[in-house]
Amino acid sequence: MEQAEIGLIGLGVMGANLSLNIAEKGNKIAVLNRTVERTDKFMKEAGDLKSQIIPCHTIEEFVAAIRPPRPIIIMIKAGEPVDQQIAQLQPYLEAGDIMIDAGNANFRDTMARFDRLKGTGLTFIGMGVSGGEEGARHGPSIMVGGAEDSWKRVEKVLTSIAAKYKGEPCVAWLGENGAGHFVKTIHNGIEYADMQMIAEIYGILRDGLGKTAPEMSAIFGEWNKGRLNSYLIEITEKVLSTADPVTGKPIVDMILDKAGQKGTGKWSVIEAQNMGVPATAIEAAVAARSLSAAKDQREAAEAIFGKAPVTFPIAYGTELLNDLELALFAAKIGAYAQGFAVMAEASREFGWSLPMPTIARIWRAGCIIRSQFLDEITTAFTANPDAANLIVTPAFSAMVKESIPSLRRVVAAALSAGLPVPALASALTYFDAYRQGRGTANLIQAQRDFFGAHGFDRIDGVDQHHGPWGSGVGAA
Amino acid sequence: MEQAEIGLIGLGVMGANLSLNIAEKGNKIAVLNRTVERTDKFMKEAGDLKSQIIPCHTIEEFVAAIRPPRPIIIMIKAGEPVDQQIAQLQPYLEAGDIMIDAGNANFRDTMARFDRLKGTGLTFIGMGVSGGEEGARHGPSIMVGGAEDSWKRVEKVLTSIAAKYKGEPCVAWLGENGAGHFVKTIHNGIEYADMQMIAEIYGILRDGLGKTAPEMSAIFGEWNKGRLNSYLIEITEKVLSTADPVTGKPIVDMILDKAGQKGTGKWSVIEAQNMGVPATAIEAAVAARSLSAAKDQREAAEAIFGKAPVTFPIAYGTELLNDLELALFAAKIGAYAQGFAVMAEASREFGWSLPMPTIARIWRAGCIIRSQFLDEITTAFTANPDAANLIVTPAFSAMVKESIPSLRRVVAAALSAGLPVPALASALTYFDAYRQGRGTANLIQAQRDFFGAHGFDRIDGVDQHHGPWGSGVGAA
Repeated sequence: MEQAEIGLIGLGVMGANLSLNIAEKGNKIAVLNRTVERTDKFMKEAGDLKSQIIPCHTIEEFVAAIRPPRPIIIMIKAGEPVDQQIAQLQPYLEAGDIMIDAGNANFRDTMARFDRLKGTGLTFIGMGVSGGEEGARHGPSIMVGGAEDSWKRVEKVLTSIAAKYKGEPCVAWLGENGAGHFVKTIHNGIEYADMQMIAEIYGILRDGLGKTAPEMSAIFGEWNKGRLNSYLIEITEKVLSTADPVTGKPIVDMILDKAGQKGTGKWSVIEAQNMGVPATAIEAAVAARSLSAAKDQREAAEAIFGKAPVTFPIAYGTELLNDLELALFAAKIGAYAQGFAVMAEASREFGWSLPMPTIARIWRAGCIIRSQFLDEITTAFTANPDAANLIVTPAFSAMVKESIPSLRRVVAAALSAGLPVPALASALTYFDAYRQGRGTANLIQAQRDFFGAHGFDRIDGVDQHHGPWGSGVGAA
Repeated sequence: MEQAEIGLIGLGVMGANLSLNIAEKGNKIAVLNRTVERTDKFMKEAGDLKSQIIPCHTIEEFVAAIRPPRPIIIMIKAGEPVDQQIAQLQPYLEAGDIMIDAGNANFRDTMARFDRLKGTGLTFIGMGVSGGEEGARHGPSIMVGGAEDSWKRVEKVLTSIAAKYKGEPCVAWLGENGAGHFVKTIHNGIEYADMQMIAEIYGILRDGLGKTAPEMSAIFGEWNKGRLNSYLIEITEKVLSTADPVTGKPIVDMILDKAGQKGTGKWSVIEAQNMGVPATAIEAAVAARSLSAAKDQREAAEAIFGKAPVTFPIAYGTELLNDLELALFAAKIGAYAQGFAVMAEASREFGWSLPMPTIARIWRAGCIIRSQFLDEITTAFTANPDAANLIVTPAFSAMVKESIPSLRRVVAAALSAGLPVPALASALTYFDAYRQGRGTANLIQAQRDFFGAHGFDRIDGVDQHHGPWGSGVGAA
């Protein structure tokens, strides 16, 4: 029997769909699951693709079925189970074999797994897969981290199953060890910000302008034809036009305003903090989800403070919808700029040489933040791969100049009306601080020297680093 | 010879000052330093206090000089050196002896040290000390974490050296193991926010209103007589009126606007993230420091985008200074509310039973954020120890109602003028989101269910958790 090109362990929805995708693209695949029942059920449902799939009931069978060096995708619950699976597999593998963790791992766990496999002859790939169940089945965005040799062994299969953007596959090797899972984490952090900003604009439309869900659906539908064109705007349009089967009302009006989260947004923020890179729009989005979950506290506070004194729009003409569209666009640039800046710093810190244009390129299709916008980022970073920040690239600085005034008007008006716009405001204040050549940290340095003798530098370079504070110095 | 009540290792400035403080308050203390020279120098400078100090040259001498069970303060560089010091001391100690880490430790390291000492008979205290060099010498704020028994052994000495607020000592046992160092970390996080907010108001005065440093000094001086009365406002007044000895200009105008940071702000944010508690004002302050350090990037961006289109105040009357004062006050409430909310959650998560009124009480004097304001927080939490948030306590909700409109006007005007106010804006959007009973996370839940089948709850409690999204569901 012809050996499989690749193996996969874990036939949950994601693993099953990825297997079918692999098989469908003409690759022979061996599959294994903890319970034999699921493997059998999977084969029954595989239809015509069955001939490409080798179902295995034991690790021995499974390993024997794969052409060495063996790439084995592990698609199971992140964390402990992955370590257990690795330990279970290890005795059956040979030098050169490659275990591929395709789950939503924290990249620090991935790094630790690389370290532990050192000297065993076995290698590892940490692979971020974005696109959910449908993406896994028909074309995800795939972010690969590991040794370049390992990548060469799986490049053909992964390229065949990845999403395509105008024919270009959305998969790439991004760097050693944890690079793939790190980039997937930041992808998710950006996704949090993107979704929160859309929700804030939705809040302005709903609470500030009194629009109904169908009316808002039409607005997002219009926006999806323009510069905001993206999967998230597209599904916002669809969601807002969907009726609740129970009440017949717009379903969005029946959904509780408590958002869940699974950790990748938080990880993004923590890593940004670890490296000292501002990611305030992502932070605001994560905080907004946490605050949404505290609905009882919010309701108690509203009882005390009353509802927002909404009078929106303030001093606004007929250009309001256009302003909202541009504001969302400007804020989106800020959030993406922060995400890419975090990746640039991580690349230095972990020695990955993360290719920014490539990352933007493989996010253009298959993943949740896919958009036309990412094609523009690809172009901008291709022309300026070493740009300090997305917003100072020529293409984006022009877009920022065009759109920031709208963000400024919208945020000021929303704040004046008491409508919460934490992520939009964070994107704006990020821009305002980023473009301020002379900031206000001189005062902070003076204070720190006053109370803690921390010292400061001077604008004239004079070699004098403490103030003549006199009595009370170091008083705290 | 009479044995010492306590020992101290590490005669750097902080350790030396703490030793002198301890001796001056009538406690006999044994001291030890890595180099004998510094111990000898310290004794020469101790003056009249010499009789209370037992200088030791070896660990044997040092341990023999202290009355068992021996409390030993370790005041050395945080991190590895502390572990080395513990290992060095351990063989000389007896059951019941207490090592006290008084450095700026990450509370997670403190927790790990507790764990490692389990079963050795030795115990540990993690002690946050705020107040810098002067505080150490004349009265710091002291946050103690560890076994209550250990606290009892040192209570008398620590009470004698702590800062006093109207006679009440600013020291307390806050809970087991890492509680003291955790509270110190959040103290510093709040300090970051407090300083950043002052810097933002300074920026409005300087760049928006063209005030000179001496003019601003007078304004902060006025404010220090009112509700903003605090150490940080006091030193802001002083700093702004201080002349540069080199040029004769206001020294603040000669100081480079690149702020340093030492990690506790970052730790605050990371722990808030770990627990899912919004700390956006603290996050904004940490990010602002990071951005200040990237001065070359800021200058390059200003060259592209130009300076802020400052026209401030916008639609403002004569009440501007009053508005700025109230705005700073409202924002400060937001930052403190976040800090206390993070501590409340940590208390649950780590089983500490952190006493909120006590924490506010021991911050009223000795530490950098000391203020009249903290006396009001003490009163509020004493009356409502289980309040879900500072801003919903009766005393503070009244203050919030009075001051939020000013914050709203000031932030909207600053944003309109292009002046960066990230921390002030974060405090405002936090309030706006916190008091919104019906938020916008329903849209986010709909999107998450659309692309990832994550499910949602309904406002009517109907047991139906997925939308009828039709085709394209789970499409990413």
